[in-house]
Amino acid sequence: MSNPQNKPTSCSQGAIDITGCRFSLYPMSDRFVEIILNSIQRLQLEHVWHQTDHLSSVFRGRPEHVIDCARAAFIYAAANHKNHLVGEFTFSRGCPGDCDADRYLSADPTPQNLAAIPLGDGMKTAAKISFYAFATDDYMMHIQKVVQLAETAGLHPQKAHYVTLIEGDASALFCYFAQLLAYAHQHLNHYVLQVTLSVNSPSIKE
Amino acid sequence: MSNPQNKPTSCSQGAIDITGCRFSLYPMSDRFVEIILNSIQRLQLEHVWHQTDHLSSVFRGRPEHVIDCARAAFIYAAANHKNHLVGEFTFSRGCPGDCDADRYLSADPTPQNLAAIPLGDGMKTAAKISFYAFATDDYMMHIQKVVQLAETAGLHPQKAHYVTLIEGDASALFCYFAQLLAYAHQHLNHYVLQVTLSVNSPSIKE
Repeated sequence: MSNPQNKPTSCSQGAIDITGCRFSLYPMSDRFVEIILNSIQRLQLEHVWHQTDHLSSVFRGRPEHVIDCARAAFIYAAANHKNHLVGEFTFSRGCPGDCDADRYLSADPTPQNLAAIPLGDGMKTAAKISFYAFATDDYMMHIQKVVQLAETAGLHPQKAHYVTLIEGDASALFCYFAQLLAYAHQHLNHYVLQVTLSVNSPSIKE
Repeated sequence: MSNPQNKPTSCSQGAIDITGCRFSLYPMSDRFVEIILNSIQRLQLEHVWHQTDHLSSVFRGRPEHVIDCARAAFIYAAANHKNHLVGEFTFSRGCPGDCDADRYLSADPTPQNLAAIPLGDGMKTAAKISFYAFATDDYMMHIQKVVQLAETAGLHPQKAHYVTLIEGDASALFCYFAQLLAYAHQHLNHYVLQVTLSVNSPSIKE
């Protein structure tokens, strides 16, 4: 197993500890541009490094803020939309070279978007997740651990090819992602959590 | 580095060699259900194990067929749609336990959807890819290798946080994925290629 004390030294210890999330919102609507822009414009982004390209946006900083901003982006878009919306999120920490903008790590850890969007949103959300741990032979054991965390969180994990399916309200899912990333940070140098969230899919029978 | 000759033995040698792709289509349109169903219904799926759940569809079998079916699903949906469409694809091979339905590995390797959708489709496509190799300390070196393959294929790879951005016509991208998976199979026991494809995005300046 990798030793968390033995992190790469090409960046400062602080810099390599930055957490990132690359995410995209896919509203299944003719109004997709408006829905995406409205969501992004409402975010409080003071405490994350952020950048948007032609495929996605990236937030980087303390995990509290990265998760808070990703959660708010998804919930704002879903609340605006009412119809089918998918969000794709790649959380990553420990990638060699993920160094710049480490000043965001010294930010006040209080989430900035929580007051506007409290927990307990009741937004029924289906998700698939894949957890990838690198440079360790024990990667399958770590997957089992994060699936157990989902079970404990009441998210009803189910095995499927290449993913684990989970479900819960949107904020409960993001709370779980925070727990998962905390577990990963404790045990691993470099890891990725790939997530797809879906609300209001006509494929889900109520 | 992992030794491809030393694959797990919990499945038969044939079974562990199965390639899978879990994929979802996201048409940014009020007509999303019709666009997705029309695409899937046109596919020739005789040579892949296939299953659909509330988030995605899965194809499993020989890489030739899995890639051929994934390519056709995306191109059918994009051609039907004309507007913005995103496809998310998780290619995987070597996952311990990915054993069932190995009878598809003995299928004739001739792609079944190629006649209906020839290569050289001219469909300008933007993509982000992430390549994940497991149980090897050399995983970053393998990422560099697959990025070099993209450069050689003329797909203009660019570094970005957590992904590599590439571009080309849709079929050229899928040809590259075939090359990448062949390289990976030669050198690794278990790997994942995560792909997002985008056509007709208003964010891309022509």
